[in-house]
Amino acid sequence: MSDKKIQIIPLGGLGEFGMNSMAVRYGEDIIVLDAGMMFPDSELLGVDIVTPDFNYLEQNAAHVRALILTHGHEDHIGAVPFLLAQLSVPVYGTAFTLALVERRLEEHDLLEEAKLNPIKPGDKIDLGSFSVEFIHVTHSIVSSVAIAITTPLGVIIHTGDYKVDPTPTDNELFDLHTLAEYGKRGVLLLMSDSTNVDRPGYTESERAVRPRLEDLFVRAPRRLVISCFSSSIHRLQQILDLAEEYGRKVAFLGRSMISTTEIAHDHGLLTIPNGILLRPQDLMQTAPSKSVAIVSGTQGEPMSALSRVAVDNHKSLSIEHGDIVALSARIIPGNEKAIYRMINHLARRGADVFYGTMNPPIHVSGHGSAEELRLVLNLVRPKFFIPIHGEYRQIAPHAQAQLAQHLSHWGLEDTFVLESGETLEIDSAGARKGEPVTVGRVCIDSGTLDEVVEDIVIRDRRHLSEDGFVLPIIAINKHTGRSEGLPEIVSRGFMSMDESSEVLHEARQIVMKTLDTSTAEERTDWGVMQEKIRADLKRYLIKQTSRRPLIMPVILEV
Amino acid sequence: MSDKKIQIIPLGGLGEFGMNSMAVRYGEDIIVLDAGMMFPDSELLGVDIVTPDFNYLEQNAAHVRALILTHGHEDHIGAVPFLLAQLSVPVYGTAFTLALVERRLEEHDLLEEAKLNPIKPGDKIDLGSFSVEFIHVTHSIVSSVAIAITTPLGVIIHTGDYKVDPTPTDNELFDLHTLAEYGKRGVLLLMSDSTNVDRPGYTESERAVRPRLEDLFVRAPRRLVISCFSSSIHRLQQILDLAEEYGRKVAFLGRSMISTTEIAHDHGLLTIPNGILLRPQDLMQTAPSKSVAIVSGTQGEPMSALSRVAVDNHKSLSIEHGDIVALSARIIPGNEKAIYRMINHLARRGADVFYGTMNPPIHVSGHGSAEELRLVLNLVRPKFFIPIHGEYRQIAPHAQAQLAQHLSHWGLEDTFVLESGETLEIDSAGARKGEPVTVGRVCIDSGTLDEVVEDIVIRDRRHLSEDGFVLPIIAINKHTGRSEGLPEIVSRGFMSMDESSEVLHEARQIVMKTLDTSTAEERTDWGVMQEKIRADLKRYLIKQTSRRPLIMPVILEV
Repeated sequence: MSDKKIQIIPLGGLGEFGMNSMAVRYGEDIIVLDAGMMFPDSELLGVDIVTPDFNYLEQNAAHVRALILTHGHEDHIGAVPFLLAQLSVPVYGTAFTLALVERRLEEHDLLEEAKLNPIKPGDKIDLGSFSVEFIHVTHSIVSSVAIAITTPLGVIIHTGDYKVDPTPTDNELFDLHTLAEYGKRGVLLLMSDSTNVDRPGYTESERAVRPRLEDLFVRAPRRLVISCFSSSIHRLQQILDLAEEYGRKVAFLGRSMISTTEIAHDHGLLTIPNGILLRPQDLMQTAPSKSVAIVSGTQGEPMSALSRVAVDNHKSLSIEHGDIVALSARIIPGNEKAIYRMINHLARRGADVFYGTMNPPIHVSGHGSAEELRLVLNLVRPKFFIPIHGEYRQIAPHAQAQLAQHLSHWGLEDTFVLESGETLEIDSAGARKGEPVTVGRVCIDSGTLDEVVEDIVIRDRRHLSEDGFVLPIIAINKHTGRSEGLPEIVSRGFMSMDESSEVLHEARQIVMKTLDTSTAEERTDWGVMQEKIRADLKRYLIKQTSRRPLIMPVILEV
Repeated sequence: MSDKKIQIIPLGGLGEFGMNSMAVRYGEDIIVLDAGMMFPDSELLGVDIVTPDFNYLEQNAAHVRALILTHGHEDHIGAVPFLLAQLSVPVYGTAFTLALVERRLEEHDLLEEAKLNPIKPGDKIDLGSFSVEFIHVTHSIVSSVAIAITTPLGVIIHTGDYKVDPTPTDNELFDLHTLAEYGKRGVLLLMSDSTNVDRPGYTESERAVRPRLEDLFVRAPRRLVISCFSSSIHRLQQILDLAEEYGRKVAFLGRSMISTTEIAHDHGLLTIPNGILLRPQDLMQTAPSKSVAIVSGTQGEPMSALSRVAVDNHKSLSIEHGDIVALSARIIPGNEKAIYRMINHLARRGADVFYGTMNPPIHVSGHGSAEELRLVLNLVRPKFFIPIHGEYRQIAPHAQAQLAQHLSHWGLEDTFVLESGETLEIDSAGARKGEPVTVGRVCIDSGTLDEVVEDIVIRDRRHLSEDGFVLPIIAINKHTGRSEGLPEIVSRGFMSMDESSEVLHEARQIVMKTLDTSTAEERTDWGVMQEKIRADLKRYLIKQTSRRPLIMPVILEV
């Protein structure tokens, strides 16, 4: 056994934001921690989500013992359906995390064959030569765990995402004791979340948002509209509690908000006071001062409930003068312009909008700041350290002096800055970087949210002409918001010119119709228009040709 | 006279970010305050800058008495060449502001006919029925003024951009006394900067960045690379002073940095210690611990000096392990991803990068926070108030209770939230919204920075097929960074199919060549690649056809 080595193989999320996935190998046994997705850069026209390239796992399919999930955020579970489509492997996670995965698997018709194994914090399972223990951690989503992997060469601890919240709203404290025990016995390797490494001090407790939320409940003369991530169960619980206290009925708006709250409620993680719920369709018939709407769409996503509310295109909620809208979430870098555009629309309709940095805070992070990262490192006292979850600008400082190397008096031998695809080998002689493995980003066109997505993995498009795409280019007059002439449609690798000419001619009319039937406000929001054009054109092309080309509307302001 | 009215006509910058321009009319006399540009949203493929539509001024050319500039930032002067190309009108501003305008006019070959009139704070000039006084204000750029316009119906004060800095580095204090005098005598209308309305308290003095910068000078074991806006003369002076104190030589890198510091030095606004300057080409031959590079490109602009340094593609500076890079500027919303990408590149080369929010700050804003806005309002005590310079989410709260309406005990009668194109009329009976005027955004393709731009105003593109565009679509393999097959080029309204086929065939080779001759790192940065493809294709097409189509490279990751 002693000549065997441990390999740490980051498949995604190291040196990049999102799509976290980490493989750990010892001899013939591989376990995978998380399988997340990322949202694409705006340069990736036509791509909806991006997943890691799981080829390494497919090639070693016989050895993959398990996929272990730390928590239910998309950047940790979003690629599970794509991994399971390639590879049949048992999945472990808390009941709530698995319930969120189930929803995704169902959409992809993969639920029946999936082997989902719920675990609880404190559980230990054997997977080949590994023994795995689940350790409760606090994070913005409930039911989050860190993973302790006992290997023949020593213990590996992977934190998942965490903050050290001393007063979580569910009173389930971070299990520092178990971490400390492992630290006392000796840990070979720690892999710890780097997201907030650049923030000094401690992240505030989830409870720190209550004073701000309560202030809104107290002062709102009319309807209160609060948007947060649907997975922020702690946050939702606080809003529900305040709604009960201040006598307001609650309506959930948005697909993800409705389904996630149902799941959390089913699992006993969200307490919904009796009789407090309002059906969305009854919202506008309820006295504004007696209602609160909890709406998904904090990031200004074009088709989200809040974006549609902002342009008065939501069937259940219209903003009226004096309504208060609170964005209880962080602004994810890259989304600023879409979010500000949405806020401008809300403000024009007379809403008072609360967002961004304020004191007391309207949002607190779910990730630990520098002192929390230090605390975990001090408790675990690993021999080796790898910062995980972050771009290079985050993982490099996390490995640096100000954290890890300062603390070497208790025996930290080395830290390693790995990017996805770089590997670390550990054996009895020590640790060093190993042979890289092939990783990458797989771009996926999932179509609109309203359609069940089939056959969606469009990957390794080596030759664009073979994979096919259809590119409508629309010239919009900035002053009128109307299109100038017929849209142009460019296609390649979709159908032969002869075959496609009639289809594309018709497709131009489809795009034109989408433009003509949109409201003036929709037409000022290119994000919304691009989504609509894509959805309509996709439906038409599937009907006519049974093909699903990549559809990328290009909108030109002229 | 008494039946005449004042019209306030915002041509840009109200309800939108950038391109500030405000016309004030009384009877037959119009004066224009500022003519700024904005940078386009990423959806505006192929557009480099956006200016206001000055048609209203062109139609009323006989009445326009002057263009008055408050300060030299691009969002206040960037459209001056485009306005002067339409309209011959005398321009007033401080000597430094006009010097920055001269540089722009020279590029457009408009300098000779321009009538530039330098003014000093305290100067008063008569323009038709207006009398205009210039009032010194503090801001991130030196030589900034507010404007007091005495009209037959009362005084109008336009603040320009400002903060109330009690300790500006040039010791030129905000002239609160003159504001107070006007306030005491009575002011009809105040128009005040809204940029930082959502920040409580006071903005820190420019001097607040010195402790952080000094710390970097003290701790940097090797080369120090500092990036800030080239127009931040206060900031540059502090860096130069520290360089002298700590015995480092200074090299300026980047076109705008070199030309702006020359202008500031020529006007006695920037003191450059004797013998401190280093030629860029001598930088790498100077001991790292004895040098500091001041580099433009804080926003991750693809062709900027710092972006090129980050991918080791700058002729005068290579980052080496242990260098410190400081971004002493704010992150403009929308630029986050480009900036973080640049920081990741710098960190991979071993640089310690300082950026973002920290204490002491590495950057302070040039715009006043809520208490400063209140102070100015309290000093001026206007009858009417219009918040200016901001999106709706900024100007609406500025007009709201927490500021203006709270203070009505001294006689504020009303506040008006105007967006560009909405007008306000004031006469002896009061103030009210008037007839809107046609405004809009003019999209301009200015080509690359290396070319003298001619005939560049491409506007009112009503019919895309008439104006013409060429759209190269390049499929890039994410794993290899190489293009897959020949690039596709789409054109419309450029040349007839028969004429263009050979040209476009050749153009594909040009694009291919651009791709093949790029470095691996450039090929990971689509912004850089798009710029390069555009520049090369533009040069080729001009040579072959003497036409200048809009060139929009579309890059597809596959």
